[in-house]
This record gives sequence, C-alpha cells and structure tokens, in this order.
Amino acid sequence: MAKVVGFGEVMMRLNPEGFRRFVQADRFEASYAGSEANALMTCALCGLDAMMITKLPENEIGQAALNEMRRYGLNTSGILRGGPRLGIYFAETGASQRDSKVIYDRAGSSIALARRGEFDWKAIFDGAAWFHFSGITPALGGDLPAITMDAVKTAKEMGLTVSCDINYRKKLWTPEEAGSTLGELMPYVDVCSFNESEASQVFGVRAEEGCAPERHYESIARRLQERFGFRRVAITLSKNITATDNDIGGVLYENGQTYYSPMARVHIVDRVGAGDCFGGALIVAELAGYDPQRTVNFAAATAVLKCSIEHDYALLSMAEIEALANGAGSNGPQR
Amino acid sequence: MAKVVGFGEVMMRLNPEGFRRFVQADRFEASYAGSEANALMTCALCGLDAMMITKLPENEIGQAALNEMRRYGLNTSGILRGGPRLGIYFAETGASQRDSKVIYDRAGSSIALARRGEFDWKAIFDGAAWFHFSGITPALGGDLPAITMDAVKTAKEMGLTVSCDINYRKKLWTPEEAGSTLGELMPYVDVCSFNESEASQVFGVRAEEGCAPERHYESIARRLQERFGFRRVAITLSKNITATDNDIGGVLYENGQTYYSPMARVHIVDRVGAGDCFGGALIVAELAGYDPQRTVNFAAATAVLKCSIEHDYALLSMAEIEALANGAGSNGPQR
Amino acid sequence: MAKVVGFGEVMMRLNPEGFRRFVQADRFEASYAGSEANALMTCALCGLDAMMITKLPENEIGQAALNEMRRYGLNTSGILRGGPRLGIYFAETGASQRDSKVIYDRAGSSIALARRGEFDWKAIFDGAAWFHFSGITPALGGDLPAITMDAVKTAKEMGLTVSCDINYRKKLWTPEEAGSTLGELMPYVDVCSFNESEASQVFGVRAEEGCAPERHYESIARRLQERFGFRRVAITLSKNITATDNDIGGVLYENGQTYYSPMARVHIVDRVGAGDCFGGALIVAELAGYDPQRTVNFAAATAVLKCSIEHDYALLSMAEIEALANGAGSNGPQR
Amino acid sequence: MAKVVGFGEVMMRLNPEGFRRFVQADRFEASYAGSEANALMTCALCGLDAMMITKLPENEIGQAALNEMRRYGLNTSGILRGGPRLGIYFAETGASQRDSKVIYDRAGSSIALARRGEFDWKAIFDGAAWFHFSGITPALGGDLPAITMDAVKTAKEMGLTVSCDINYRKKLWTPEEAGSTLGELMPYVDVCSFNESEASQVFGVRAEEGCAPERHYESIARRLQERFGFRRVAITLSKNITATDNDIGGVLYENGQTYYSPMARVHIVDRVGAGDCFGGALIVAELAGYDPQRTVNFAAATAVLKCSIEHDYALLSMAEIEALANGAGSNGPQR
Amino acid sequence: MAKVVGFGEVMMRLNPEGFRRFVQADRFEASYAGSEANALMTCALCGLDAMMITKLPENEIGQAALNEMRRYGLNTSGILRGGPRLGIYFAETGASQRDSKVIYDRAGSSIALARRGEFDWKAIFDGAAWFHFSGITPALGGDLPAITMDAVKTAKEMGLTVSCDINYRKKLWTPEEAGSTLGELMPYVDVCSFNESEASQVFGVRAEEGCAPERHYESIARRLQERFGFRRVAITLSKNITATDNDIGGVLYENGQTYYSPMARVHIVDRVGAGDCFGGALIVAELAGYDPQRTVNFAAATAVLKCSIEHDYALLSMAEIEALANGAGSNGPQR
Amino acid sequence: MAKVVGFGEVMMRLNPEGFRRFVQADRFEASYAGSEANALMTCALCGLDAMMITKLPENEIGQAALNEMRRYGLNTSGILRGGPRLGIYFAETGASQRDSKVIYDRAGSSIALARRGEFDWKAIFDGAAWFHFSGITPALGGDLPAITMDAVKTAKEMGLTVSCDINYRKKLWTPEEAGSTLGELMPYVDVCSFNESEASQVFGVRAEEGCAPERHYESIARRLQERFGFRRVAITLSKNITATDNDIGGVLYENGQTYYSPMARVHIVDRVGAGDCFGGALIVAELAGYDPQRTVNFAAATAVLKCSIEHDYALLSMAEIEALANGAGSNGPQR
Repeated sequence: MAKVVGFGEVMMRLNPEGFRRFVQADRFEASYAGSEANALMTCALCGLDAMMITKLPENEIGQAALNEMRRYGLNTSGILRGGPRLGIYFAETGASQRDSKVIYDRAGSSIALARRGEFDWKAIFDGAAWFHFSGITPALGGDLPAITMDAVKTAKEMGLTVSCDINYRKKLWTPEEAGSTLGELMPYVDVCSFNESEASQVFGVRAEEGCAPERHYESIARRLQERFGFRRVAITLSKNITATDNDIGGVLYENGQTYYSPMARVHIVDRVGAGDCFGGALIVAELAGYDPQRTVNFAAATAVLKCSIEHDYALLSMAEIEALANGAGSNGPQR
Repeated sequence: MAKVVGFGEVMMRLNPEGFRRFVQADRFEASYAGSEANALMTCALCGLDAMMITKLPENEIGQAALNEMRRYGLNTSGILRGGPRLGIYFAETGASQRDSKVIYDRAGSSIALARRGEFDWKAIFDGAAWFHFSGITPALGGDLPAITMDAVKTAKEMGLTVSCDINYRKKLWTPEEAGSTLGELMPYVDVCSFNESEASQVFGVRAEEGCAPERHYESIARRLQERFGFRRVAITLSKNITATDNDIGGVLYENGQTYYSPMARVHIVDRVGAGDCFGGALIVAELAGYDPQRTVNFAAATAVLKCSIEHDYALLSMAEIEALANGAGSNGPQR
Repeated sequence: MAKVVGFGEVMMRLNPEGFRRFVQADRFEASYAGSEANALMTCALCGLDAMMITKLPENEIGQAALNEMRRYGLNTSGILRGGPRLGIYFAETGASQRDSKVIYDRAGSSIALARRGEFDWKAIFDGAAWFHFSGITPALGGDLPAITMDAVKTAKEMGLTVSCDINYRKKLWTPEEAGSTLGELMPYVDVCSFNESEASQVFGVRAEEGCAPERHYESIARRLQERFGFRRVAITLSKNITATDNDIGGVLYENGQTYYSPMARVHIVDRVGAGDCFGGALIVAELAGYDPQRTVNFAAATAVLKCSIEHDYALLSMAEIEALANGAGSNGPQR
Repeated sequence: MAKVVGFGEVMMRLNPEGFRRFVQADRFEASYAGSEANALMTCALCGLDAMMITKLPENEIGQAALNEMRRYGLNTSGILRGGPRLGIYFAETGASQRDSKVIYDRAGSSIALARRGEFDWKAIFDGAAWFHFSGITPALGGDLPAITMDAVKTAKEMGLTVSCDINYRKKLWTPEEAGSTLGELMPYVDVCSFNESEASQVFGVRAEEGCAPERHYESIARRLQERFGFRRVAITLSKNITATDNDIGGVLYENGQTYYSPMARVHIVDRVGAGDCFGGALIVAELAGYDPQRTVNFAAATAVLKCSIEHDYALLSMAEIEALANGAGSNGPQR
Repeated sequence: MAKVVGFGEVMMRLNPEGFRRFVQADRFEASYAGSEANALMTCALCGLDAMMITKLPENEIGQAALNEMRRYGLNTSGILRGGPRLGIYFAETGASQRDSKVIYDRAGSSIALARRGEFDWKAIFDGAAWFHFSGITPALGGDLPAITMDAVKTAKEMGLTVSCDINYRKKLWTPEEAGSTLGELMPYVDVCSFNESEASQVFGVRAEEGCAPERHYESIARRLQERFGFRRVAITLSKNITATDNDIGGVLYENGQTYYSPMARVHIVDRVGAGDCFGGALIVAELAGYDPQRTVNFAAATAVLKCSIEHDYALLSMAEIEALANGAGSNGPQR
Repeated sequence: MAKVVGFGEVMMRLNPEGFRRFVQADRFEASYAGSEANALMTCALCGLDAMMITKLPENEIGQAALNEMRRYGLNTSGILRGGPRLGIYFAETGASQRDSKVIYDRAGSSIALARRGEFDWKAIFDGAAWFHFSGITPALGGDLPAITMDAVKTAKEMGLTVSCDINYRKKLWTPEEAGSTLGELMPYVDVCSFNESEASQVFGVRAEEGCAPERHYESIARRLQERFGFRRVAITLSKNITATDNDIGGVLYENGQTYYSPMARVHIVDRVGAGDCFGGALIVAELAGYDPQRTVNFAAATAVLKCSIEHDYALLSMAEIEALANGAGSNGPQR
C-alpha cells in the first residue's frame, strides 16, 4: 500500500440544503474538505495510504474536520492541532442559468498561521512515494510559501514524486504573486495539472498563435512542460453549458504525446471537488502502472462521477471509476 | 429611491419537500407570496422602495407573512391587519412528464373581505412613482373590483405610472367576468403584461389571421394596445418541453416597435413566480431608464433566473440579472 | 369494482435523502414496497379492489408496512402476520454517469419462510377477476414455488386471469433455476411482461436472426407467446442515456399483432417501480376494456410518470395517466 | 368486532417542528385529526371497527386526510367527498412557562357546509353498537346541529349507545349557544365526558356549595347526570404545572358511585388529543366489559400515554395501555 | 413610538439540531444574533422603534444577518456594510448533567475592525430616547472602546438614557481589562445589569461580609450603585440545577429600595439570550412607566419565557410577557 | 497508549426522529453501534488504542458501520469483512409513561455466522493490555461461544486483563443457556459488570436474605465474586422514575470493600449505551490507576452523561467526565 502525502488547508464547508440561496438558508449542511484532502480521498478510496498534513484548531470543530477525513479513510495521524480557527467556505449550489457561488471565510485559520518549524517533513515523508499539494497552499501566505518549499525540496531529496494542482484563487493572491511563488516551486514538480485559464492567468501561457485547433491543448501543455520541466502535464477540460449541464474531460501530455479522454455531458449534482479528484486519480493511475491513455480516462471518469456526488469528496470505489473509464454506459439500477 | 406600490393578495404557500406528491407529504415548506408581492420583491432587491398593500389577519400566521416580506426588503408599513384568515395555496412541484399542481384555499381571506373604506390611496401613493396590480386582485370579488378602481383612478390623478399583469385565474372567475371587470380598469393602465393565452381568453384577442409567423406576437400586442391605449405591452413566452425543461423569453411592444428577448432553455427548480417577477423587472428597467431592448432582455433574464430559485420570490441582485441579460453565459462556480 | 389479487414480498425500502451515497447517509427515508404491491397500487388508484397477499412480522415494522399499503388504498385484509422479519432493501439514487444501486437484505423474511398451508387460495380468490405475481415470488425459495403453483392453479380453476411480470433477480437465483421454475408456472399465465434481457437470460429467447429491426420485439414476443401460450405479451423498453435521463416505452403483442407506445425521454426522479406499475396498468387497461394500442400507451404512460415520483408507488390518478397517454404534452403548472 | 361510528370534523393540523414558534416556522409537520377521529383511533387500535363519518374535499388534501385515517386503521368507507376545503388548525407546542397555542382556520370547510340530506344514518349505523360525537360537531353551525340531532335520534332508535365529549370551543360559539344546542342533544346521550370548566361554562353546573373537597367531582357528575339522565359521566382531570409538566387523571360516575383513576405526573411531548382518546378509551372499556374502576384507569392511562406521542392520535396498542392501567411502572427500554 | 438604539456585534449562530454534540453534527441551524440585538428585539416586539447599529460584511452572509433582524422587526436602517467577515459562534445545547457549550469564531469581524469615524452618533441618536450596549462591545478591541465612549458621551449630551448589560466574556478580555475599560464607561450609564459573578469578577464587588442573606443582592447592588452613580441596578439570578432545569429571576435596586421577582423553575429549551432580553425588558418597562416591582417582574418573566424559545431572540408579544409577569400560571393550550 | 481489544457485534441502529413511534416514522436516523463498540468508544475518546474486532459485510452498509467507528476514533484495522448482512436494531425513544422500545433484526448477521478459524487472537492481542466482551457475544450462537472461549483463554495466556459486561438479552437465549455458557467463561474474567436483575436471572444470585438494606449490593457482589473469582465486580444502578427521568449510579466491589457513586437524577435524551460506557469507563479508570472510589465515580459519571447524548456512543472527553465525577455541578453554558 503505497503512501501518498498531501499538504494544504482543510475547511468547513457550509452549504444551504438543495438549491436554496444563501439568504434563504436557515440550515446549512456541514462537511470538511480542501483541494488536497479531496485529491487524497480518491487515493485512499482506491487503496493507497493517503496521509493528510494540515493544522486544525484544538476544539470540537477541528475535531469534526479530522473525524470526517478519518471516517472516509484518510490517514490523519500526522495532523497538527492548535491555532485559532478552522477556515470556512459557504457554498451555494447553482442551477440552470444561475451559477454556483462560493463565499470564503478563511483568513486567520490555524493552517494559515502555522509556522515553519512545526512540520517535520523528513518524518512525514518516511516511507512515502508521492507528495501532492495545490497552488492554494502557498497562496495562504505567512510561512506557507516557505513551508511548501521545504516540503517539495525534502520530497525530492527523499525520492518522492511531486504533483501540484495549480488551483488559482483570485481572492487569495494576484496572478503575478501566484506566478512568482508557484514559479519557484514548479521545478520540483513532476506532475502538474491545471485548466486552460490558469495556464494563461498564472503563467501567461497560451496555445501558440495559429496553432491548429486539434493541437490547442497540446501546445499549452508542451509550453508549460518546457518551461518547468514537468514529466507529465494534465489539463482539466470543462465547459459550462449551464450550471446544471457541463461537458467534462481531460488531457494528458507526456513525452511529447497528447492523450485525450472522451468528453462527457454531465448533469451536475455538486461540481465542487471535480478538479481535485482528477488530480488524485492521476496519482492512483500512475502508482497502479496505467498507461497514459488509461490514466487520463481514469482521471476524467473520476471527475465526471464526482459531479454526481454531494459535497467535495469523490466517494467512489476504484471499480466504479474503472467501469466508467472502460466505457461502460449506464446500465440502470445496480441490483 | 423611487417608490413603487403594489396591491393584492399575499398567501401562505405550502409545498411538499422536493418532488413529493401532496399525498406523500407529511411536511410542508411554508413561504408567503402573491403575484404583486413577487413583482415588488424584484423592485426592492433592485433598490426601489417597494411598498406592498394588502390585508393580513391579526395573528401569528399573518405576522409570519408580513415578516417574510420585510425580511427580504419589502416596505410593509402600509399593510392592514385584521379579518379572518390568510389565504393558502398548496404547490406540488412537477418533474419530467408530471406537471406541477396548485390547490388554492383562498376563499374568505382577510384581503378578499376587505372593505372599500379601509384603503386611503392618497396617503398610500404619497411620494410614489408607480402602482402595480395584477388581475387576481379584482378577481377576489367583494369590494376588490371597486377598491382596485379607486386605486388606479387615484394613481392616475396623482401622476403615477400604472402597470397590470393580467394573470387570469380560471378558478376565481370566468373569462367573461375577467374581460368585463379588467376591461374597465385597463384604460388606466400604462404598462400591461400577459401571455398569449390570457390575451385570447380574457380579451378575445388573437394574432390577425394570415399574419406572418414572425409578426404573430406583434399583432397581438398591437391589437391590445389599440383597444386600451397602453403605452407598453409585454408578452411573456414560455414553452413547456416538460415540467423540468422550459423555454422562456419575452416580447415588448412600444411605439409600434416590437423587441424580443432571446429564448432560454431553462432547467426548472421552481417555476412559480417567473411571470410575476417579469412584471417587476419591467418596472425596474423603466425607472432605470433602460431602452426597450435592454428592458425586455432584463425582464426575461429575471424570469429565467427565477426558475432556478425555490419558492416564489426572485431573490436576485440587479447585478446578477444584468450579467445574464447582458449575455454572459455560465462561468462555473463564482468563487 | 373488480377485485385483483397480488402475491409476493413487501419489503422496507431505506434510501438516503436526495443524492447521498450510502456511506454518506445518516438518515434514511423509509417506505414499504415490492413488485406486486407496486403493480397493485396502480390498480387501487385506478379504482379496482386491489388485494395484496403477503406475510408480515407481528411487530411495528410489519405494521408500518401494512399501514403504508392501506394508506394509499390497497386491500390489506388478507395479509398474514407472523414470522421473524421484514425484508429490507437499501436504495441509492444515481445521477448522471453514476448508476443507482440497490443492496438487498431480504433473506429469512416472514414471507420467504411462509409455509404452503398458510394460504387459503380459494378464499382469497373469492370474487376476484385477476391474479398477479412476479418472478420474484417463487425466487424467494422454500415453499414459495409450491405456493405460487397452488395459487396459479387455483386461479385458473376459478376463472381468474393470471398475469406475471418476470422480474428476474440474479441475486436470488440463477437463470437456469429461474427458467425451470418459471417455465412450469408460465402455462397458467395469460398476460406476461418482461424486458428483452429477461427473455434472453431466463428463457433463452432472442429475436430471430436476420429479423428486420422493426420486427425485433415482435419476434421475441411471438416466440415466447408460442412457447407458453400467453394470450398477451408485453415488453418494457428502457434505454439508459444516463442515470438521469432514460427513454421509456412499451410493446404489446396480441393475436399476432404488435402495438408500440411512443418512447418518452424521461428526467428521472426515482426509477424504481416503473416496470412494476407498467404491469399494473396492463391489468387496469384490460379490465377497463381498452383496445391494445390504448392499453400499451396507458401502461407506458404509467411507467413514464412513475419515474417522476419518489419511492416505489406510482401515486397517480387514472386521469393523470390518461392525460399523458392521450398525448397531452406539458401544460405548465395545473392551477 | 363491534362497530363504532364517529361523526365530526377532520382537519389538517400544521405544527412547526420541535419547539419553534409560529413566526419561526418555515416548515410545518402535517397531520390530519379531529376530536372524534382521535377518539375512534383508540377504538380502532384496540380492535374495534371504527367508522369515521365526515366530509372531505375532492382534492389531494382531502385525500391525504382520508389516507392518514386509513393508514392507522379507521374505517373510512363512509366518508363523503366534496365541498370547498379542509379545515386547518395551526398548533404551536409550548414548553415550560410558555403555553401551547392553537390557531383555527376552519371556517367554510366541506363538513361545516354539509347539508342534512347527505347523511344516511340508517345505512351508516347498520350493524353498529355505538355512536360517538363531540360538542364541536354541532358547534360548526349550518346544518350540523340538525344533522347531529338526526344522528342521535337514529342511533337511539337503532339501539346504539351514544357518547358525547362536550369539548367546548369558545371560538365557535358562546356558552349560551353551546348550552342550548347541546342541551337538546344530551337526552339522547348515554355516556358524557367533559372537564370541570366545561360543566360550569356550558351547563352552569358546579359542585354544590359546602361540598366536601373529596366529593367535589362527584357532586358535579351527579348534578349533570340528574339533569340529562346520563348512564355514565366521566370527568377528565388535568392540572397544568407548566406546559411541560401536567398532572392527568380521570373520574367516572355511575349508579351513584364515583371511581377515580390515579393522577399521573406527565412530561408532555404533545398534549393535543389527550381528552379525545380518553373518550375513545371509555368506549373500548365498556365494550370490553370492564368494571367501572378498570374503565376509568384504562381511560386515564390512555390519556396519560397520549401525552408522550407526537400529533393527535394515541397510537397505542391495547396491551400498552393495559400495562400502565394495571399499575406497571416504567421498566426501562423494552427490548 | 419611542426610539431605542443598540450598538454591538451581530454574529451568525450555528447550532447542531436537537441535542446533537458538535462532533455529531452534519447540519447546523443558522440564526443571527448578539447581546444588543437580542435586547433590542424585545423592545421591537413590545412596540418600540428599535434601531440596531452594527457593521456587517457586504456579502450574502451579512445580508442574511440583516434580513433576520429586519424579519422580526428591528430597525436596520442604520447598519453599516463592509469589512471582511461576520463573526460566528457555534452553540451546542446541553441536557441534564451535560452543560451547553459555545465556541466563538469572532476574531477579525467587520464590526471588530470598524473605525471610529464610521459612526455618526449625532445622526444615529436623532429622535432617540435610549441607548443600550453590552460589555461585549468594547471587549471587541480595536477602535471599539473609543467608539463606545463616543456613543455614550453623545447619548448623554443628547439626553438619552443609557443602559449597559455587563456581559463579561473571559475569552475576549481579562477581568482587569474589563474592569478598567468598563469602569470608564460606567459613569455615563443610567441603568446597569449584570449577574453576581460579573460584579465580583469585573468590579471586585461582593456583598458586604456579614451581610444578612436576605440583603445579599441589595448589598452588591448598592455598592455598585454608589461606585458608578447608576440610577438603577438590575441583577439577573439564575441557578443551574442541571442544564435542563434552571431557577431564574431578577432583582432591581433603585433609590435604596430592592425589588425581587419570583424565582421560576424553568425547563430549558434554549437558554442563550435570556440575560439579554432581561435587559431589553427593563427598557420596555421603564419607557412604559411601570413601577419598579412591575418592572422586575416583567423583565424576569421575559427571561423565563425566553428559555422556552429556540435561538437567541425572545420572540414574545408584550401580552404574553405580561400574562406571566402578572402571575398567570399555565392554562393549557391557548385555543 | 495502552491497547484495549473488544469483540462483539456491531449493528445498524435505526431510530425514528424525535419521539416518533415506529408506525409514525417515514425517516430513520442511522447509526452503528454495539455493546462492546460502545464501551471501546469511551476508551478511545479517553486516549486508549481501542481496537474493535467484529465482522461486517463487504458492502456499503458494512463500510458505513466501519466508517462510523473510525470517525470517532476506534481502531478498525482488525475488522473482518464478509458474510451476508449487518444486524439491525430499531430503537424507539420513549417519553414520560411510555417506555422506549427496541426491535431486533439481527439473525443471520456476518458476525453471527463467523467461523472459529477466522480470528487470530494471538495476532489481535499483540501488544494489548485488556480484552473486553459482553454476554451478547456468545449469545449470538453458532461458533460464537467457542470463539469467545478462544479469545478469553488466549487473553489470559497473554497476560491481558479480561472484562465482561453480562448484558443479558432474553430474545437471544434463556437464562439457563446464558448461565451455562457465561458460567464457563467467567473464570477467565477479571472485571465483571452487570445489574441486579442480571445477577438474579442469569446466575441466580440475590442478596442474602435478611441482609441489611445498606449491604444489599455488597451481598450480591460478594456472592458473585466468590463464585467466579472476579477481581472486581461492578453493579450498575438505574431506577426508572419514568422513561424521561432516571436515577443512575454504580457500585464497585473489590477486596471485600464496596464503593458507591452518588446517584444522579437524569433527564433522558437517549438511554441506550449508558451501561456499555460504564463498562468502558471502568477500563479507562483502571488503566489510569484511579483508586476504587474515583473509579466508580468516573464510571457512573460516564453513564450519567451518556444519557444526555443521542445515539449509542458516549461522545465525551475525559475532561468532561472528570468534571462531573469530581462533583462539579452545572455551571451554565460553557463559553
């Protein structure tokens, strides 16, 4: 059971029931998630030892966050406790022409205020094969950029594969700040995933002008690969027909070759976390020795299925993902 | 902040949770709404002083109705209290081939039994720019036709713009009764909105025979404009593909010109109130000085977005409506 | 009011709220249903005396099952009480690319352990016109195959029409066991319904090779009709676009003629029970004297509408079914 | 299985969840009940054929009311359908120093507008042993006093025992009106139950002055017995310590003898219906041939246990009532 | 309608449903409250113009807070919008031997970061009779002590009565900090309320040694009155038998006289806010011209009744409070 | 962190919401618990490595059971997967004079059908200090008595302390069967807990005749200690005033000395599991080196606090238990 380590923020997610708008809500569903925890959950559910590193307050709210990760199978033994609070995000589910909406209330969280000396990366990475983080982690500011740099350097020294999901958040930093800080981290990254808009906003990378439409994503991937030396580049594709219907798929670029998953028309239950579990599925597929085409199909199938599940986690077995990735259509109720 | 006055019935709405049928329901969601309150809510949320005139019983159920209007921003300072009861309507949400269903239990309500002397229209209209009512108000019978006539006459005397949403309800009166009573009120109306079936049922107005298809709605609008002297005529368009999918848009006719909004394919969360807020958005757009094309786009966008919101009120900011009206497609979750 | 008798298992159905996966559920909605009870409910709601024969434990859970049948109108006066437990099935509602899932926990139920002597079929069938069962009933094992044989023989002797919905369940028996046991029961059956996969799996019947596509279902129906001497054969058609969208319709074969209902694109609320009520609607239509085309349209409309209703029962009035069967499209909210 | 007939209004009950006040409620629990239906439910659950006579509107709300009665075992085969609406009552559950509160919205209901010719009492009473009504029934006005008089006269002619629960409702009529109308019905009543305040308000009957405290209730009972010729008089006793804690018991007077149940300190879950099921339990006990002491203990135990059950119906088996009536204390969880 | 102004923090309150512990909660009920808003709500519900001054973020969460105050009747026209976030508190309801628990997450809220120049007290107090604040307001730190000082000085200059509820919160400041800051504000306060422990912790005031037990509270009140020159001093009394049962009452000291309300044994539904509405009721009673005994009875009755109501606000009419204050015991359900 | 091993059944618990009776329930709350898991949860929450041994089916229902244990901190690494089903128990919460009620549906569960060879006790007990089981485990029949005997023998050989909570269940076996099977296991038990009725029913042990009342429990404890050679004997005391109010405490007998906890009057939220966590707390206290008086106080405080918590687990920190055990009364909300 290979060990995968993730590092980042875990927040309380509060969403109104059903399609209620924030101002209509007098009840919120509470769950606990974050970009890296979401990615790692897919690792855990596919049989890896998925260890989440974060810092949670020493109160019942922090405990509830830890408990929810533990409940579904994350390894929580390395989580730090202390600091003032758990970050919160409020999520309103859109429908049809009304987009979903997220309000962040994450400033001053225990993880954002964590200090460099608190994380013993050598011990954390002991026996691990992979380290995963998202661009949100250094975006939290304070010591986090330095802590993340410590982590990736130690990971590389100890022979781990390093993956990063860019996940640009404009409310946390400017494109310039992101480009600068992430630019320093990227040389340590083996597998990088992002969407087209992030490539352009954060790294200023667009498809070459005049590039043939069918080579559009290849062009972006190659340019980023060349700049940072990634071994693998993955691009998540999603087209919002409406808030209810999306087309979702993925692209994988490796060794100069480009692999495309099918695009699926998805009827959205909850879109949050689809990109995150795409990243987690890349880890699962690589550690399982899948070839690139099977890898991108597997990752896209995970993202597609995630959209049918409430809350952030892609609560799916490997068999369920494989069934879709292998092209099985719907077979009606599974009795 | 221009003052808009609405007059009509406010009812308790009881709907089963989710897609439950009435006979399956052992819980009902309670909200409080009515055609004019729905229209005025859009005015209030877009920054107008939206004053709702109605009569509510002097008990906690009446208070809850008042509180819900106040909660979202209606001006409730002119509401009368007293009388026996609040009208109720039961609403069952349809899906796919099963239509939504409404059961009215509105007879004998406090507003339906209100007497002519109770409303001091001069005081109510003090400082107001606009008066809005729907065809449901005089349909309640008793003194209501006379009270409505008092209102429109006073409004015109005091220089207010008067708008009416025809809203024919076959359980309240016959087409003949509606045509006769509304026909007397129409000469005082500046802006009139309705759908094609209402034009035909209530006023016997259909598109001219042999009229070119692209002039169909123009023909109806012009005929009604000519009969009653409306300054503006608006027609709501909605095509029920199924109870889940509708095509929704609007037409505005003014000065012999016809303006069409785009038609949008809408995945329905709750369709009730979509026509009402179309009427409210017409008021907002005119008071904001929008040109006719922008006006009909704005009104249709409000109706489209309403369908994604639970219960009657179109709980939307002006910016949200504008974003859709200006042609922005879905951009995924708004973080 | 013609009397229709059904015989089979009634289970507690536990489903998570909304689209929750089993592992996310800390609340379950409880309802009580079964293939035959579902079929009979359509009979009861269309005005027949629908008497359900089953055995329920003598505790409050068994009482709740009886109460739910009684609530919606089944005749529960012939239900036996006793035995150890009520069977349970857990149902998870799928969405988009994620299929629905059913976990059965039905072993050792009161009905599965019922003994042959407990059912007095002569008394049960007194005054009855029709007997309905599904292939699940003999699949429960123990005395059930013999009890079912007693029932069909007595029914035929007493002049009842007998219908069977094949409903093959692979977790209860093998195709060979089903083919053998059901094969002995079929000669007593007048009206048999199934889907294409059941015809092939259980009876090894496929369309003739080289059969023209438009004669595909006719071929299957005729072959089965010829083997067992059915008076009528009905095939349910359903194509799973995704777990959210299905195409649903039906075929009826009688006297060498084949009748097709329209296929409807259905947005699924809850698909469970759609096949069952198709079978119930066949009974209603035949007892109402409908011609074959009207019959298959009516049965398919029932199945289509069922998919818009939560839980197993097709809680629909005859008028609602007729409206769709007669080709009425959606007319918006029914006020 | 003796047949008991009840006649009266069945209403929709809407109560906020938990201890929510009306103005806090955005969801209501819906149930369907009424004084006579509540009494009859106890008869049905104790094994009698309890036939409820009322009139319900021909819509899904009326159907839901019928379904709920049928669900728990009432005989609904004699219920009339038609008329405009179902009466509603809103119920707010009190706690501690805050009393429970009921808002009635019952005017204009189908039963209140029912006409004398609609009820065929001869047919209804066919095979029946007992007729039960409450003072609320004639209080509904219109034809109801005459219909009730028809009922009691026919009942007496056909040899039924007649019972009445006075249930004075000050919002329906004045004490004078009640005294006059009920006074005419009382001579046909065999078993009458009420509380002390009703005896005084409606019939002006108080304990004799100077009467020894231990003879207080006997004095009231005897005076009423003497005035109207009741065979049995029952008085419900309840002392409100707070809205959460009540002392509850009962008194039975017969043949000049007075029998007292023990008083129980009750922790209230839902007090509504406690008096009604006391009346139903008197019927059960008499038809079961209990002696007077056992009768009053049984009736009081039913009322006491009712207070621990949500909504109006005393959903209790005869064995559960007997266990308390026979003096068994709490034995902890019944496993 | 006298105008009362309150100033302080309004927070989102998140509590698990029922008696769930924090770690069991996957849903939270959301409401919006604060010490001063709670006090003012009692003023509003008793007919005063209760204007709440606070600062809320310019997002939907801030809007929801404003809407809830407006819903129940507070005047929200003076509320500032802006700043980063709304403070949150998590509330777990205790039972029996398990105490209730509150987790604060209030740092960095919009009100805590408000700056001195943002509040125009002259305009705010225009036409006002009373100003109320609690010790929590200056405890928020930053500019809040200075803003509060501005408020009380302006209030006194403009002739308003000033009241303060001490409300010491040990998580916000030390007793010394509280004593020092509040000590400077107290000379501007006319009516001060607190509990015994606050008097001792914050101001070091205890009953005189050797003081007769019946003069215990008088001694504390007099000492504080003498130190700060209060016109009126009120002490809230509460004895926790368990988390479920409390004894609650109050003491008022004025002109050297001491007035005691009765102590009531309260069965707790939700204790939060009981002290706050006691303070609000003191304002109502004084503005209504009640004598001191009636005043303390009225304030204690408000606190007692609050404990039976979910969430912070004492949602009670003046008549309901008066009924208890005037000594009416429970009368059973109010029909 | 000492390791404690528990062995027994884990079931799905389904309880209606609030005080609903089974027949009223259309929703059930689902949790997962069992006597030993409940005891071990207290160990886990007090900082021990609490490893639960059981067998769960290899489906999502089994996974949900495992997840819930893991969520709150049990060590689930030794749980076997496989077999047909998870046992279920339905729990109805009583109130006042209505007792709680449990319906078991546990026959044929995966653990009940587990075979002797499946459990490698040597490996399981590796590094463990304590083994705990209840009398329910051997009562499940099949191989369970032999498996339990294997476990206790191995535990003793490996030097573990062995504890047993008698937990007699009359629906699983007769007193004679229990006495015989448990009688053979008892010689391996160091710490035995039970209530008075179990001592009498299962082992025929009652207090000596003529025994002074204050020596009643000592007499029972001594007799059982003498028969089986227990090191420690604990008796749980509970007196059911009503289903809502219980008196709860405990007795500990060791070295001829008897120690009594205080008895607490408890207002019940959920009584299930109170005895189980009493047993778990005995383990915690002994491993923490508490003296006997502190031990019984701690165990009784755990049981008392459990009654205020929904569902089976005593979700309490060691500090919370200590606070009550050390005699702290209620201090009002903990802010």
